[in-house]
Amino acid sequence: MQESELRQDPMTKDWVVIAPVRQKRPHSRKVPPNNQSATPDHACPFCLGNEALTPPEVYRDTDTEGSWLVRVVPNKFAALWPSTSATRKDGFFRRAPGLGYHEVIIETPNHAEDISEMSPDHIARVLLAYRERYRKLSEDSRVGFVVIFRNHGERAGTSLVHPHSQLVATTVVPALIRRKHEIAERYFDDTGRCVYCDVRDAEIADGSRLVEDTELFAVFAPFASRSPFEMWIVPHAMRPSFALATDDELDGLARSLRRCLRRLRACCGDVDYNYVIHSCPRKDEDEEYYLWHLQIVPRLSEPAGFEIGSGMYINTVAPELAAQQLRTASVGE
Amino acid sequence: MQESELRQDPMTKDWVVIAPVRQKRPHSRKVPPNNQSATPDHACPFCLGNEALTPPEVYRDTDTEGSWLVRVVPNKFAALWPSTSATRKDGFFRRAPGLGYHEVIIETPNHAEDISEMSPDHIARVLLAYRERYRKLSEDSRVGFVVIFRNHGERAGTSLVHPHSQLVATTVVPALIRRKHEIAERYFDDTGRCVYCDVRDAEIADGSRLVEDTELFAVFAPFASRSPFEMWIVPHAMRPSFALATDDELDGLARSLRRCLRRLRACCGDVDYNYVIHSCPRKDEDEEYYLWHLQIVPRLSEPAGFEIGSGMYINTVAPELAAQQLRTASVGE
Repeated sequence: MQESELRQDPMTKDWVVIAPVRQKRPHSRKVPPNNQSATPDHACPFCLGNEALTPPEVYRDTDTEGSWLVRVVPNKFAALWPSTSATRKDGFFRRAPGLGYHEVIIETPNHAEDISEMSPDHIARVLLAYRERYRKLSEDSRVGFVVIFRNHGERAGTSLVHPHSQLVATTVVPALIRRKHEIAERYFDDTGRCVYCDVRDAEIADGSRLVEDTELFAVFAPFASRSPFEMWIVPHAMRPSFALATDDELDGLARSLRRCLRRLRACCGDVDYNYVIHSCPRKDEDEEYYLWHLQIVPRLSEPAGFEIGSGMYINTVAPELAAQQLRTASVGE
Repeated sequence: MQESELRQDPMTKDWVVIAPVRQKRPHSRKVPPNNQSATPDHACPFCLGNEALTPPEVYRDTDTEGSWLVRVVPNKFAALWPSTSATRKDGFFRRAPGLGYHEVIIETPNHAEDISEMSPDHIARVLLAYRERYRKLSEDSRVGFVVIFRNHGERAGTSLVHPHSQLVATTVVPALIRRKHEIAERYFDDTGRCVYCDVRDAEIADGSRLVEDTELFAVFAPFASRSPFEMWIVPHAMRPSFALATDDELDGLARSLRRCLRRLRACCGDVDYNYVIHSCPRKDEDEEYYLWHLQIVPRLSEPAGFEIGSGMYINTVAPELAAQQLRTASVGE
């Protein structure tokens, strides 16, 4: 099997993962528009009874009857691997071995159960799996950065429809994260405050982009949203990393996330989306200028030549209008 | 009509264009797989005879019989406008008026003529239109940055199938461009050389990612390609901006570009792609650490949660393999 490799762009310092193995990923058929009618796919490696089709599991959460509710397994077509023979070669073109972890969080044994239809308690168990794996992988001192994400729908990059999320732990700290850190650090030096906390507080104070504000989390459509109906779920408690989230916070996040996904569905239908949990680099967990948060990015527009050339995004829906619609949307039961 | 607005993300310094008017864009039907069989669309604003459907033209190139070959018109659903009543408001959240230019280069009167099927001389006339508009708009001292791009196919963000490119001139210099400038400046200070020229020379010397090397342009799949079959066309002559390209270079670029698009088609079929002409900011045209170039980005993979969360791209085709296939592909006549 051809191993993956990290390569640094000398002109932007961004790292790219060259991962030929991921070309071999299986693609399951698109789920019918009404998820409820989808029947289990007997070839689906994430379905109940097909556990042998995945690499050996690294985490399991079971229900009261003893069958599994959430499983975590290494990604069979991982972009990064914990062991690789490649060595770092730093010439004019910098390369590094594709070291890291790439895991799949299987959110339910049920092929057709959308996360927005799960109970808040079930979603909290999914979030618990995220946090436990984040903490576990952080014990490897080579890990520099951990990102947890969910791709929903083909436009959002899903290759398998069975509900799942992913966790990637990289050994390098990505250039984007360095840049965000630098801006947050400068802001802290200038003001003594965390820019993420200040953004949250400014969004709450302004109110025009606020979707909901509960005891533990604020939800808003950010001022400079890159895509229509983008939402951020931001904790009130100052913690730089999702690894530090408390059990109560996982519970509160589950409820906020479920409402957000239901609001999105009420406003836009079953739109493709990504959600991403942003944290600081692993070694900065005791610094005071980052605040972990969950970002939901609906895939309602296609970044095109302008975005590639300028890095600027064009958003056709003002976040104030999106927030107004999301705020008043029915979230059901 | 609701005017557009620029907003700066306080956490990344990236500017986002909030442009509600672009929601009203018309979407023409998808062109049939075999472009040759497509008949002109009588509602198409870019077709011969429908000139009155576009805003008044700002550039026209005619053939020997006097009918137009290339037209440039302001984008009817522009993201940025040269005049706007909005004023700059810099509180915690920074906003700026959506000032700038957004033009459409209509590449041919023929609805179904793909750019890769045009004659090299016709393509050179398209490139001439790019350069002339770039130069003209640069006379407006408010213009900070100009990007020229082509979106081919729905996945690449096209809304109208009639062959066209776009030019956007912004008053702000985008954060991405600032960062690239900073890296190039530091490289220049460290080495006395332009990093883009050094990359070009290193790619030619290495050869494994080289697609072709002609008198005026080198073409390669860059070392840290973000997407499969990405190609860069880079001039041998050191000029920071496409506005400075000579007539001979436009002619050479037309031939290289045509071959690249034909190579891509031979390897991947009629795949969606963006191409982008990268230049330095307008006020840095006399600096020695940027080299304009044309980047072709096939849309063969979907950036997903990992890319949003880390800024790192996963590319499943090693550029060495892509270059080998592109190099040996038939480019026809």
